[in-house]
Amino acid sequence: MEQLPTTGRYAFLAEPFHCDFSQRLFMGHLGNQLLNAADFHSSEHGYGLRYLNTIGKTWVLSRLSIEMTDMPRMYDKFYIETWIDDVFKSFTSRNFKILGTENHVYGYGKSMWAMIDTKSRQPVDLLAVNDGKITEYVEKGKSCPIEKSSRVKMGKIAEYISSIDTYYNDVDINGHINSIKYIEHVLDLWSLEWYEAHLLKRFEVAYVAEAHLGDKLKFYRAPASSTNTNDFFVRITKSNTEGETEVCRARLLF
Amino acid sequence: MEQLPTTGRYAFLAEPFHCDFSQRLFMGHLGNQLLNAADFHSSEHGYGLRYLNTIGKTWVLSRLSIEMTDMPRMYDKFYIETWIDDVFKSFTSRNFKILGTENHVYGYGKSMWAMIDTKSRQPVDLLAVNDGKITEYVEKGKSCPIEKSSRVKMGKIAEYISSIDTYYNDVDINGHINSIKYIEHVLDLWSLEWYEAHLLKRFEVAYVAEAHLGDKLKFYRAPASSTNTNDFFVRITKSNTEGETEVCRARLLF
Repeated sequence: MEQLPTTGRYAFLAEPFHCDFSQRLFMGHLGNQLLNAADFHSSEHGYGLRYLNTIGKTWVLSRLSIEMTDMPRMYDKFYIETWIDDVFKSFTSRNFKILGTENHVYGYGKSMWAMIDTKSRQPVDLLAVNDGKITEYVEKGKSCPIEKSSRVKMGKIAEYISSIDTYYNDVDINGHINSIKYIEHVLDLWSLEWYEAHLLKRFEVAYVAEAHLGDKLKFYRAPASSTNTNDFFVRITKSNTEGETEVCRARLLF
Repeated sequence: MEQLPTTGRYAFLAEPFHCDFSQRLFMGHLGNQLLNAADFHSSEHGYGLRYLNTIGKTWVLSRLSIEMTDMPRMYDKFYIETWIDDVFKSFTSRNFKILGTENHVYGYGKSMWAMIDTKSRQPVDLLAVNDGKITEYVEKGKSCPIEKSSRVKMGKIAEYISSIDTYYNDVDINGHINSIKYIEHVLDLWSLEWYEAHLLKRFEVAYVAEAHLGDKLKFYRAPASSTNTNDFFVRITKSNTEGETEVCRARLLF
């Protein structure tokens, strides 16, 4: 069999109804296309969600960072390049490069994924899947010049901002609150006036626990820097009959 | 110039993160792809949103009905065929057929669109745009065997169910609440248990007025039939400093 290239490249369109009031692609929809690109690339190499489902395993997005100098505009065709940066026992790190036509670079992304058992929800040894072939397409030579996804450590002091209930459309194929919905809900903490004056430069999210339909999500915000007032931490918790638990942390730099 | 076919056909993928807990495409995402297909088709014929923007005009979706016997499943490739069914002075009716591979028919859609002036928000004579060429690609011969989009007449008695605030991600490129978001919010009125037992067969929506960021949306529900308990009306109103006004009516048949 011919060797596939280590980097996948996929074309997308900034659909008009996926763009915000400024006619730029919403960060949530960009995030969704990064996840699609990751899945297309994994599938080509025998590690796609569809195959993993058949053997009782799945990928879980653990961390994602996106850093953009610019956003695709309405009707722009854009490309996502993605490659595996490193492989650990139960994790892989995967990078992204977001390009326009004529190789204009919009930005980059970094992500961490865990492979888990769909029943036990525990990490599995991903090197035991597909004879560990995943190590054969690690790409070390390609640059992704942004800070890696961190665990997003935030202090205990954060201001309560708002809460929302979760419904049918928030739930993904696994019965959990969709990873992308968290991004959208976090971005909804800022006003249109804020977005008129500020471009989101970096978005970072760490998924801590899974939330389910019916959980109430609460949003807390804190400054992330003593010098830059455009740098924020956001903590999301879920509340249900078992109490309040952290599910997600984000950091936003405007 | 070679004559374009009257019917456009566009390919889509039921992306995994656009599918619900049952691994079927969300109705909202299908609706979004219908709007994309409409725009691709209009663009090919010189009536796309991008061109209309340059002459201070735009399409506004007035009514949409979708009737499905089945929904694309996760990773299914599906096709949307769309054609102009009829042209009036300020309106066109546009039909849709949703197909799978080997021409399996998932369902059909019907829609009504108004062309308006982006400044006055008033209907314009669409026959005056592009020398009225739109009349040349009306397709009368193709069947769309579902009831047409109605104005959704509902009685005055409807039960208040819930309300939501609107945020950054709800707003489209025109600064209005995104047409698709209404569909999602309406579907969120039913529980996961309901969806586990019922397939949505027909969804119909009539857009009455535009809502804006910051408006509070309120949802009211009433039975639509005295004999069928799976047939519902939903009314959406917006509330702001000017009071409460109807923005949207829907009818759902499970």
